[in-house]
Order: sequence, then structure tokens, then C-alpha cells
Amino acid sequence: MKKAAIGVDIGGTNTAIGVVDELGNVVVKDNIATPSHGDVDRYMDDLTLAIRGLMNSVNLMNPEVEIMGIGIGAPNGNYYAGTIEHAANLSFRGIVQLVKLLKVRFPELQAIALTNDANAAAIGEMIYGGAKGMKNFVMFTLGTGVGSGIVVNGDLVYGCDGFAGECGHTTLIPDGRLCGCGSWGHMEAYCSAPGMKRTAFELMARYNANDSLLAGIPFNELDSKMIFDAAEKGDKIALEVFEKTGQWLGMSLADTAHHLSPEAIFLFGGPTAAGDYIFRPTKASMEEHLLTSFKNKIKILPSQLKPGDAPIVGASALVYKEIEKSDLN
Amino acid sequence: MKKAAIGVDIGGTNTAIGVVDELGNVVVKDNIATPSHGDVDRYMDDLTLAIRGLMNSVNLMNPEVEIMGIGIGAPNGNYYAGTIEHAANLSFRGIVQLVKLLKVRFPELQAIALTNDANAAAIGEMIYGGAKGMKNFVMFTLGTGVGSGIVVNGDLVYGCDGFAGECGHTTLIPDGRLCGCGSWGHMEAYCSAPGMKRTAFELMARYNANDSLLAGIPFNELDSKMIFDAAEKGDKIALEVFEKTGQWLGMSLADTAHHLSPEAIFLFGGPTAAGDYIFRPTKASMEEHLLTSFKNKIKILPSQLKPGDAPIVGASALVYKEIEKSDLN
Repeated sequence: MKKAAIGVDIGGTNTAIGVVDELGNVVVKDNIATPSHGDVDRYMDDLTLAIRGLMNSVNLMNPEVEIMGIGIGAPNGNYYAGTIEHAANLSFRGIVQLVKLLKVRFPELQAIALTNDANAAAIGEMIYGGAKGMKNFVMFTLGTGVGSGIVVNGDLVYGCDGFAGECGHTTLIPDGRLCGCGSWGHMEAYCSAPGMKRTAFELMARYNANDSLLAGIPFNELDSKMIFDAAEKGDKIALEVFEKTGQWLGMSLADTAHHLSPEAIFLFGGPTAAGDYIFRPTKASMEEHLLTSFKNKIKILPSQLKPGDAPIVGASALVYKEIEKSDLN
Repeated sequence: MKKAAIGVDIGGTNTAIGVVDELGNVVVKDNIATPSHGDVDRYMDDLTLAIRGLMNSVNLMNPEVEIMGIGIGAPNGNYYAGTIEHAANLSFRGIVQLVKLLKVRFPELQAIALTNDANAAAIGEMIYGGAKGMKNFVMFTLGTGVGSGIVVNGDLVYGCDGFAGECGHTTLIPDGRLCGCGSWGHMEAYCSAPGMKRTAFELMARYNANDSLLAGIPFNELDSKMIFDAAEKGDKIALEVFEKTGQWLGMSLADTAHHLSPEAIFLFGGPTAAGDYIFRPTKASMEEHLLTSFKNKIKILPSQLKPGDAPIVGASALVYKEIEKSDLN
């Protein structure tokens, strides 16, 4: 009997659903709209239909596959409560009892669990990716924001209320840039993809760099891919954006390392596609900021999850962690 | 049968040893010199003699008391290895196999374990102090330096190598003050007792404050107690030292909270004796720097361990954590 798990990634406009095999491959997948109507029951009906559809098609392909459960990654997902709470980008008001509602609809499944996107990515890395066999590591997801998932002794750290792992909102530069959360100087405002854009414009302003390859692109159009392309062509501003971003990220990772002394820190997301442009200065800066007893020990690694499928794959991995926990109890 | 545990606190010049009852009271204690000769075997003989002496006197007082084990708090103490590694303030060179050497000398004891001072304080708070029943909290020890011990799911976080919990060496002000570790801008350089002194002198320089009660005290004589006394008399510089220290400490605690979402953060050490002078601005600043989902949840509490005995009491608490762990396995 082969095992598989369902991963659900709830985004602002789209909900992606996939069946993931034990190696972390998405076997079949589907999409439904994350509604703007705010009606939880209608959404649950749509979601149930889509999941049942995928379960049936897996069963047709291979009746030997056993579906173990459903894992969900969602903004503001609270693992302890199985709820989505006051998510700014979703139309649902207040608290949605997602796990409870799904358990009623899928009583035959062993495990249904939910957490936020970055935590799901961390568990995905642990079950299917580069963190297999690691007991202490941290996952950073660099995108529009910066998320993080912390693993200690083989378990995700949820904290007292399910909200642990908000490393993107630690203060990097006191009274620095405005962060998306409304506060100031957070590492997310420097190390996310929009943070890199802001750095590019700060540097062009600093050097009055009319000759930069980035100088013809308006603020609201520049993205981290354009900065990478310019760096590949030797553009000084673009190259310095990666240097600065790496310095900031490395300093922040050293702070996290001093808290947790992890074996490795994994980086996931758009900016990491730039490879050595970002990894080299990040590693150098982290080492520079580490205490002697921490130096030359902690690996900074690219996530082994495939970019497109990672949120589904990460969410599905939750299922195996849940079953492992219930086996222990 | 009443239970007790032996706590050993190894300091730079003095090793304090005590027998601690189940309520966290030190029943009897003794002191030996932490040697400058660097001879581990001679030190182990002295330590063994002192511990045997205390065990005998407890036995004479009350033969019903069972000594469960020995817990040791030591600078650079590595819990996993049971060793003291390259401690700058001790005369021993390289790695000292302290737990191994003690197990040979006390084969009848259930548990012998070692960790660093701040971790020992955290376990002390959990077993005997204000963190009883808490599963997720952080302990900060503010003194000459700033140490920290992190508890997640009821267990101390040691990280992959035993060195986790160095929150005092996270960067508070990039390129800020020189830290004792040789790096720059660490929170320890701002929030320790010497950090408060440095703040006092920065403020006197800023305001040219010849009329401050602190203006007649040389740099190498000022301590945090003098700053407290001056604050009590309404001295503006001293009052602002507490405000600034609290702002920095609160910002740093918010960073730690964003990592771990603890139920409470405990503060221990000299500067906390100033009570509201330090707790009020620290709380206000932490709340100001927290994400909305973290606000008004996390308590900042004074340690319930008695200042003088805390290192012994904390170290002794390790014994009960060890027995709990071996019972689980």
C-alpha cells in the first residue's frame, strides 16, 4: 500500500490542491477560487468537491494508494486551533474553523491539520526536502514578505498560541524602513523581494545612478528578477543590491542562530533564484556576526522544494507530522 | 522519603555548592575555590570532597532525604557533551569532561548534568519559580553580560550543539557599541549592568550634565545600583538611563517573542532590582514593537528565584529535568 497526502494552499485569490506522494511529488492537482464573497460554507463545499475529485482520480490511477489526510497552509493559520484568524488578504471575517469543518466532511481520514505557509514549508523541507534527518533548523521564505518556520528537536515551534516563527518582523534597523505590518525597520522591509527593490532605489538615489540598467524602470514595476538580470550584465547598482541584501539577511540570520543554534538555515523563494549573488554575501555576513562558538557550523542552504509546488507539498507534509504525533501519544 | 538535589555553580573564582530541597530552598551550602592552577583532577577531588561533606550533613540532619543527583551551571557549559569548553574565565584549558568525571565519583546518583548559567536559571524558574506549569517561556539574566535560556514545549532549547540561547549577542544597533565578545551593537552592550553605565555616560556627554548626581563618579566606579539610587532622588540622567535601557530591552524582547511566541519572559539579575524603573519602559517598548497578533499577551515578569541562591538552585533543578527525561525513554 503506497501512501499519499493532500496538500491545500490557500492564497488570496486562488486555492491550490494537490495529492502528494511519499517522495514529495505532486501526482494530481486542482485549483478553485478563494472566494471574495466571504461565505465559508460555500467555500467548504467547493473545497470538498475538489478534494473528493482528486481522491477519486488517484483511486482510478492506482487503487493501492492510501490517502492519509489533508494538510493546509493558510495565511494566519493557527495550528493549535485549526483555524484561520483575521487574515487580512482573505474575505472571511473573524475566525474560520477550517479543520473542524473538514473533519466533518472527511471523517475517514487519519489526520487533518493546518498551519501558516512558512511553517508548512519548514515541515515540507523536513519530510521531503533538504532537512530530512535534521532535528534543528530554520526555514526562511523570502517573497512579498518574509516568513519563517522554526524546528527544534524535530518539532515545529508554535509557541504558546500558534504564532511563533515571525522572524521577518524582528527589528533589523531601529527606526528604519516602514514595514508592511505598520512597524519600522523590520528585516522583511530589507530582505523580501520588495525590500530588494527599495534598496535598488535607495542606491540609485545615493549614487545619482542615471547610467544603471535599472534607472529606466519605474518604482512600481521593478522586481527582483529584473535586478538579477541587471546583475548578470554587471550593473553596479544591481550587484550592490545583492551585497546589501546579503549583509542584512546574514546579520538577521545570525540573530536567529544565536537564539536557536540550528544545524542549517534554509532559504526559499524568488530572491534565492539568484544563487551565489545572494548566498555568498549572506553567508559572509552571518559568519561575521556570529559568536566564536557558532562560527563555521551553520549551513545556509537553498530549499530543495520545487518552487511552484512547494506550498502544496509543504502543506501535505503536515499530515505525516500529525500521524507521527498521534502515534507517540 | 523527601527528595533533594545538589546544585553546583562554577564561577571564575569561586564554586558554590548547595543541597536544594523540593521547594527550591538551599538547605546547606559550601564554597571551594575555582582554581587558577588549571589542574582538573585536583579540582575534581576538592569538589567531590565538598559534595560528600554536604551529603553527609544532610544525612545527619534528616536520614529520610534522598539526594537525586547533581546539576552544574558553568560558563560555556555544554549540556549534550557534559563538558566545559574553552571557558575564557576559567583556568582549565580546552574541554573538561566534567559530567563524566563526576559520574565515576558518584556512581550511586540517578542524574548528573551540566549546562550554562542562563539555561540553569531557566530550568530553576520552571521547577521552583514563577514558570511552574509554563511550557513556553524565555529567561533573561541581566548582569555583567546578558544570558538567556529558552523553553519550548516544556524543554530547554539546546540547539544542534548545546549552545542555543545566546540572545544577548543579537544585534540591537547595527555598528553600535563594542560588545564584550568583540562584535558590535549587541543587546548585551546596551541592556547589561555595564551597558546601563555606558548609557549614563553617553547621556551625560549628550546633555553636558555637570549637575547630574552621577557626574562626580568616575567611569570605572559607576554601577547600576548607583544609577538606581540617583533615579530614586529624581536625577534626570539616571531616570533617562532606565527609559533608554527599557526601550532597547523591550525592542530586543519583541524580536525574541517574534521567534518563539512565549507565554512569558522572565528577567533576572541586578538591574531588575530597580523594579518599575526598568519593567515599565521595557513592557511599553516590547508592546510597541510587537505584531498585532502578539500584542497584550506576553507577560514580562521578575524571576521568582532568590538572587543570592539562584545559580545553585537553578543548577540543582537540572537534576529533575534529567530524571523526567530518562523516565520518558
